[in-house]
Amino acid sequence: MSILIKNGRIITAVDDYVADILVDGNVIRTIGTDLTADADTTIDASGKYVIPGGIDPHTHLDFPFGGTISSDDFRTGTIAAAAGGTTSIVDFAVQQRGHALSESLDIWHAKAEGKAAIDYGFHMIILDLPDSRIPEMDEMVRQGVTSFKMFMAYPGAVMVDDTTIFKALTRASDNGAFVCLHAEHGLMIDVLVKQALAEGKTAPKYHAITRPPEAEAEATHRAISMAEVAGAPVYFVHLSCSEALQEVQAARASQKYVYAETCPHYLALDDSRYDQEGFEGAKYVLTPPLREQWHQDELWKGLRADDLQVVSTDHCAFRFADQKSAGRNDFSKIPNGGPGIEHRLAVLYTLGVCTGRISMNRLVEIFSTTAAKLFGLFPRKGTIAVGSDADLVVIDPDKETTISVKTHHMNIDYNMYEGMKMKGMPDVVLSHGNLVIQDGQYVGSPGQGRFLKRGTHK
Amino acid sequence: MSILIKNGRIITAVDDYVADILVDGNVIRTIGTDLTADADTTIDASGKYVIPGGIDPHTHLDFPFGGTISSDDFRTGTIAAAAGGTTSIVDFAVQQRGHALSESLDIWHAKAEGKAAIDYGFHMIILDLPDSRIPEMDEMVRQGVTSFKMFMAYPGAVMVDDTTIFKALTRASDNGAFVCLHAEHGLMIDVLVKQALAEGKTAPKYHAITRPPEAEAEATHRAISMAEVAGAPVYFVHLSCSEALQEVQAARASQKYVYAETCPHYLALDDSRYDQEGFEGAKYVLTPPLREQWHQDELWKGLRADDLQVVSTDHCAFRFADQKSAGRNDFSKIPNGGPGIEHRLAVLYTLGVCTGRISMNRLVEIFSTTAAKLFGLFPRKGTIAVGSDADLVVIDPDKETTISVKTHHMNIDYNMYEGMKMKGMPDVVLSHGNLVIQDGQYVGSPGQGRFLKRGTHK
Amino acid sequence: MSILIKNGRIITAVDDYVADILVDGNVIRTIGTDLTADADTTIDASGKYVIPGGIDPHTHLDFPFGGTISSDDFRTGTIAAAAGGTTSIVDFAVQQRGHALSESLDIWHAKAEGKAAIDYGFHMIILDLPDSRIPEMDEMVRQGVTSFKMFMAYPGAVMVDDTTIFKALTRASDNGAFVCLHAEHGLMIDVLVKQALAEGKTAPKYHAITRPPEAEAEATHRAISMAEVAGAPVYFVHLSCSEALQEVQAARASQKYVYAETCPHYLALDDSRYDQEGFEGAKYVLTPPLREQWHQDELWKGLRADDLQVVSTDHCAFRFADQKSAGRNDFSKIPNGGPGIEHRLAVLYTLGVCTGRISMNRLVEIFSTTAAKLFGLFPRKGTIAVGSDADLVVIDPDKETTISVKTHHMNIDYNMYEGMKMKGMPDVVLSHGNLVIQDGQYVGSPGQGRFLKRGTHK
Amino acid sequence: MSILIKNGRIITAVDDYVADILVDGNVIRTIGTDLTADADTTIDASGKYVIPGGIDPHTHLDFPFGGTISSDDFRTGTIAAAAGGTTSIVDFAVQQRGHALSESLDIWHAKAEGKAAIDYGFHMIILDLPDSRIPEMDEMVRQGVTSFKMFMAYPGAVMVDDTTIFKALTRASDNGAFVCLHAEHGLMIDVLVKQALAEGKTAPKYHAITRPPEAEAEATHRAISMAEVAGAPVYFVHLSCSEALQEVQAARASQKYVYAETCPHYLALDDSRYDQEGFEGAKYVLTPPLREQWHQDELWKGLRADDLQVVSTDHCAFRFADQKSAGRNDFSKIPNGGPGIEHRLAVLYTLGVCTGRISMNRLVEIFSTTAAKLFGLFPRKGTIAVGSDADLVVIDPDKETTISVKTHHMNIDYNMYEGMKMKGMPDVVLSHGNLVIQDGQYVGSPGQGRFLKRGTHK
Repeated sequence: MSILIKNGRIITAVDDYVADILVDGNVIRTIGTDLTADADTTIDASGKYVIPGGIDPHTHLDFPFGGTISSDDFRTGTIAAAAGGTTSIVDFAVQQRGHALSESLDIWHAKAEGKAAIDYGFHMIILDLPDSRIPEMDEMVRQGVTSFKMFMAYPGAVMVDDTTIFKALTRASDNGAFVCLHAEHGLMIDVLVKQALAEGKTAPKYHAITRPPEAEAEATHRAISMAEVAGAPVYFVHLSCSEALQEVQAARASQKYVYAETCPHYLALDDSRYDQEGFEGAKYVLTPPLREQWHQDELWKGLRADDLQVVSTDHCAFRFADQKSAGRNDFSKIPNGGPGIEHRLAVLYTLGVCTGRISMNRLVEIFSTTAAKLFGLFPRKGTIAVGSDADLVVIDPDKETTISVKTHHMNIDYNMYEGMKMKGMPDVVLSHGNLVIQDGQYVGSPGQGRFLKRGTHK
Repeated sequence: MSILIKNGRIITAVDDYVADILVDGNVIRTIGTDLTADADTTIDASGKYVIPGGIDPHTHLDFPFGGTISSDDFRTGTIAAAAGGTTSIVDFAVQQRGHALSESLDIWHAKAEGKAAIDYGFHMIILDLPDSRIPEMDEMVRQGVTSFKMFMAYPGAVMVDDTTIFKALTRASDNGAFVCLHAEHGLMIDVLVKQALAEGKTAPKYHAITRPPEAEAEATHRAISMAEVAGAPVYFVHLSCSEALQEVQAARASQKYVYAETCPHYLALDDSRYDQEGFEGAKYVLTPPLREQWHQDELWKGLRADDLQVVSTDHCAFRFADQKSAGRNDFSKIPNGGPGIEHRLAVLYTLGVCTGRISMNRLVEIFSTTAAKLFGLFPRKGTIAVGSDADLVVIDPDKETTISVKTHHMNIDYNMYEGMKMKGMPDVVLSHGNLVIQDGQYVGSPGQGRFLKRGTHK
Repeated sequence: MSILIKNGRIITAVDDYVADILVDGNVIRTIGTDLTADADTTIDASGKYVIPGGIDPHTHLDFPFGGTISSDDFRTGTIAAAAGGTTSIVDFAVQQRGHALSESLDIWHAKAEGKAAIDYGFHMIILDLPDSRIPEMDEMVRQGVTSFKMFMAYPGAVMVDDTTIFKALTRASDNGAFVCLHAEHGLMIDVLVKQALAEGKTAPKYHAITRPPEAEAEATHRAISMAEVAGAPVYFVHLSCSEALQEVQAARASQKYVYAETCPHYLALDDSRYDQEGFEGAKYVLTPPLREQWHQDELWKGLRADDLQVVSTDHCAFRFADQKSAGRNDFSKIPNGGPGIEHRLAVLYTLGVCTGRISMNRLVEIFSTTAAKLFGLFPRKGTIAVGSDADLVVIDPDKETTISVKTHHMNIDYNMYEGMKMKGMPDVVLSHGNLVIQDGQYVGSPGQGRFLKRGTHK
Repeated sequence: MSILIKNGRIITAVDDYVADILVDGNVIRTIGTDLTADADTTIDASGKYVIPGGIDPHTHLDFPFGGTISSDDFRTGTIAAAAGGTTSIVDFAVQQRGHALSESLDIWHAKAEGKAAIDYGFHMIILDLPDSRIPEMDEMVRQGVTSFKMFMAYPGAVMVDDTTIFKALTRASDNGAFVCLHAEHGLMIDVLVKQALAEGKTAPKYHAITRPPEAEAEATHRAISMAEVAGAPVYFVHLSCSEALQEVQAARASQKYVYAETCPHYLALDDSRYDQEGFEGAKYVLTPPLREQWHQDELWKGLRADDLQVVSTDHCAFRFADQKSAGRNDFSKIPNGGPGIEHRLAVLYTLGVCTGRISMNRLVEIFSTTAAKLFGLFPRKGTIAVGSDADLVVIDPDKETTISVKTHHMNIDYNMYEGMKMKGMPDVVLSHGNLVIQDGQYVGSPGQGRFLKRGTHK
């Protein structure tokens, strides 16, 4: 099957030109002016942007957390992703304590297979790393699971100690794996949470108050130190605040191999959401919490200056009605996480490009290209070039959409951006040559998504 | 006329893929796999890199300095540039004190016309800016001369005072012009030079000793302050040392619009050259001087981290035999400048890419793409994309050349890199669709080069 | 004559204890418990602080500026100083362009002799330093004028160029002299002033707007660079803003011999004063101007952290009625300066000690001890120790005074702190053993003050 | 009993003058010129320095560690301290896991009573802090044990986790206690030690290699973060390297209440000691280890700039013959610690003052005054002022001593400074009015030392 996209304004991380793109099967075959190929389908992209499909390296679909399961599975979650211009995700498999990493990988393969609307890969979350299990990391790398995540928060649940992190980093320095960290000083937070509860502070807003920026900055710094001694690169997930950003910036200025992503909600929302009446704040109980508004500008500056390299969603949806409610009388029992997989591009375009904070080229870089390079998917993904997968997104630069739970594709009963007017929701999305979104609606077939065996990062 | 380049490994600032490129007239018409066009000429690029032609934004051809004229004119200089993979230069016209800017522009147009082997633009050096002459800056911008250079060094010659610089920056903040500065604290240096001469220190090495890094760093900082108050961006030419780099780095970390280039000689050579016997050191009397070796690593780090954005040559050749000799008994009389227009790519590839300091993508960025964006030439220049000028360079990644005055194309009786073995000298170079270099030899016709009316920078 | 001060709480830069002090002639002879000496006078200091007399190293008495003369001379100015707890000043003699430094010193000796109520020394302001005049600097040092000031602002008036500053610094690195600088980028300010006037902006507030913090920070950085190359220490007078403070802080963190003073008005007042109705703002037209309020906190922090070492007054009084009025239609014609010699201690005690920003020990250090050490007066001045001059100040810690033009001792028709309630105005002041202030009133005889032949700084 | 010290050059943290001191009983009664009191003893201090007795806030006398006991007890250790000009120590009591803090305090009182030659206080080392035991911290403060130490290193032995540290800091923010930390990332070091041993690296030098500066810097940063969140000051013991110093410097520049001491061995010795033949390196197995030589300059700069405030000894002596030998085949089994209590002043004077790195005033400050202020002993200790304890040290500025195990007073069979020629060993030492050292020999009676009930720090 072939598709010809005519006259689009093609934007990559560096280029900006008008041309035609001929897609043949899964890949881009030709780019040129006045292509006259006899394609099965022709799409008129005049006056529109054509950008590479997005890569979201931080999603939690069908994810067990605190006794419940996140509400979007690989079918609903990936359809929503596609609707938002994302054509690849890297989701998290989680080790079971005392079990082999491969067991979890099998489980996650089963979760995704036949359901995914777009291509997907996995990171592996390590909970337990006795010396005997270290070689399993090499095996994961061989199977295309080239990145490992650990938690420095949530003691008693998924937190691992520094010994585990340092051992994993040491191995990563040998086998090319990439270590991703949730950086918050869990033990300090735990004391603050207990103090708050002991003082009768149970409302959602205390979730934020007991997780101060200093706790995130400290863990960020600590991990950078361990990575440096181990000689391994390190990647910080969901960086939320200026203090942590400064740690990353300082490390990068010293030429260390340190990377970080932030998320749309840190760029668009602030901690005033926790002051809403009643239990409404629970909708925004995610970790790290939303911060004071001034951090947003710092994060945008970090994106512009390349101190932040990627924007992911940390999509982890829990229904307000019957999941978030578990913490109605105790904020520490609210499942942590929020829905966002569908609106990453819209937030970046509306609040980033339209305001002049970042250029279209930079949008493509943080939305797609850099994640592809860091997570071993480039040049197959992350760009518009001859030979690359035909993961393409067509955007009408002026079309505005009002975000709402009523129209979104995510399987969740609220939307964090409810009522906001945004530009940048795609007209057309191609996933390796297949038309999956047209006029904003899903037109593909679940199961078209393929497992991405990833290379090591560059 | 059409040219088909087959199977090259195409490298842009972001991409890296194998494909065919069809050049039609001056521009790239199609990029694809298995292009079967009926081209006039076919070039086999299998196993070779194809990169965008270089942009050298700092050359001094046919340049009057200290009573003499630089030895390369627009014919010899641009042929040498092409031989080194550079397909566009931005040279410097210099105002005559008390005369209109347009007079100088006319003179420089005359110098270049009919001689240039590749495309060329001009910056305008301001020596004299009474309020009445400020509107001439706008006129220059309209004529495509969108950048202005001033000297903070050389009192009594080309130095202007801070009043002039600040006024020019203030205008640039309105008309989109880009101010380039030679940043050295000329008055302080002048005292040091007089002290040295008074003490009988006349050898070439005192050129370096009397121009300390602090003098460069100070002027860099001062200019950044003035640019900030004026609300204008600023570009530092030939940054040579860690101290100045730190000023640029700090400004950029604070989100200021500050840019800087370094030059191949600062990356490849050090101040031990001044310790050579006799008058040999005069070959390296250029400004700022070569620095202690440890600065090289800092400059490479700066290039990797994007604290330095461009590498230019500051090509300004004076013959050792009869021009440099003017300062045989007084280093301050040696014409300042060195030849380098031909070896920029070779230095970057050999010492940058082959050692792992920078990637091929980053080489393309600092050799071509960023200069195109900053100096108003993108996307016509600086990338390989459909519709862009067919300025293309084909390199055999493994071929080694021994650099020598005997074989170089520059009109100068010595080579700063004499005897060094370098990779990265081009096999083939196309200048807007014309074959100008083949097998390393010039095959074009002088006069093919066109004046580049530049836009304002982005 | 002998004086016994009983039971005071003695505070030096480091100590804090209760004891008796026996003054014999000009000096402190004995400190002890239960001293029973047969003194001519006994002062009961129970429940009061006894601190060393203050040193104000920045005053302009009987000072010619812009065609007028500052309104306080050595009689009225030093009485006011004494009333505020200051027992030594270092005033500024100013070279006449083209004349020997010694000529000015003679003039200033004549201004002070027979009039001063307290001890005094001189700095020499250099306007003109041809090579032939450089040895005069050594002669000044021999005569106890061990510090030189230059202006980086006021082009066309007292500004000197960087050549002059660098030459003076170079000589200071040999002869032990100490260079003091008024750091503002005068040329940049000059352009801004002309722009403002051209736009009809003539009110006093434009004085502040045309002298931005960046201009001060830039000059501070530039002078630090020149001092570093020259190998000489440098002292910044009247540092007013966070940006300049950061330059000093960075230099000190790099172990450079860089020092700075701020003034009470920068600690107590802000630029909202310029928004007062009519011409009132002219009362605060001093240089650098008052800054936005947030700078105050930064300056206090700088004082606590020893990034600022001294608080001086820059006392330079011009009558509102008939001197400031010269600039009624053009802010650039308002004589620059304000009165403050009398309230330095009160500001430091009230806004510094009483608020917890600094300790009493630190107050003594910045009010007296460090100036004594830097300007060659220690241990004769600056401490309470056996053998030191009996310059002593007794303060009732709780007594409050309302500051007013009606009661102050300065010869000036307004007070910048009018109506403020302050603590820390002295009860008793001794100047080298002479009682000069009692119950807040002057009881000495003008002419008691002696010229201080200062040593070089340590 | 009374003692008159005649004509000494009295140096405090700020002063420098010649006078007589009359000691009456335990305290200084009078300071004056030509005192003619009828004293029991007169000491001629002409041409000599008289400084306040030193305070060593970090000693381990009679200390259990790794199955053995440090070789100096409160008799031999305090005699050696006195011989070196130290007249107060603050030693460490150590909690037994699961036992009340008061039990340990009782034990340590018993260790010291009747033995100490000079005054002494205690810090309390916390090993175990369940919530129920937190109020015991307040009780310690009431008993004059106002500082608590915790270890971030030595997992499985004395290390506590971050939860414990954060809880202690939180309490300290309420009760005025001062938290002291041994900052090294123990878990990371543990992995490195195991790796080294697994690779057969058992020699003493691997002690240093497995405890890199990054491990110290990381823990320093982490503790600063926790202290900031808790709102408590924090004090780092035995800071050894530039990397950790930079963390302290940055925190102090941000106005945080962060303090640090270094030790004489980090100022005088370097890691080349570990390269000595055979097992000699074990003599220098202390923690943190000796560092590369370049750190010494950074530490001296830190002392000069007040980024480091105190020099303590961390005296913890283990005999080479039969204690250090436990680790002959495994560096991790060598008891950590070295002897130094006797040579703190000599190192500071010889390597600090005589080389011009610090002034005599600054020596007094870091040797005595600041420790007195931080640890609640000022103004009773730490200065020479009327009413203060007569803890006085007389030094002949020119007298040189060759340091040797043969002549030192410490009960230990080697000396880390063996053979070094040092100045600054005291002639005379008074401990609260008692002559304890004369002509370098101990002339006091053990048991004269008194327990110091300390106040909270300022």
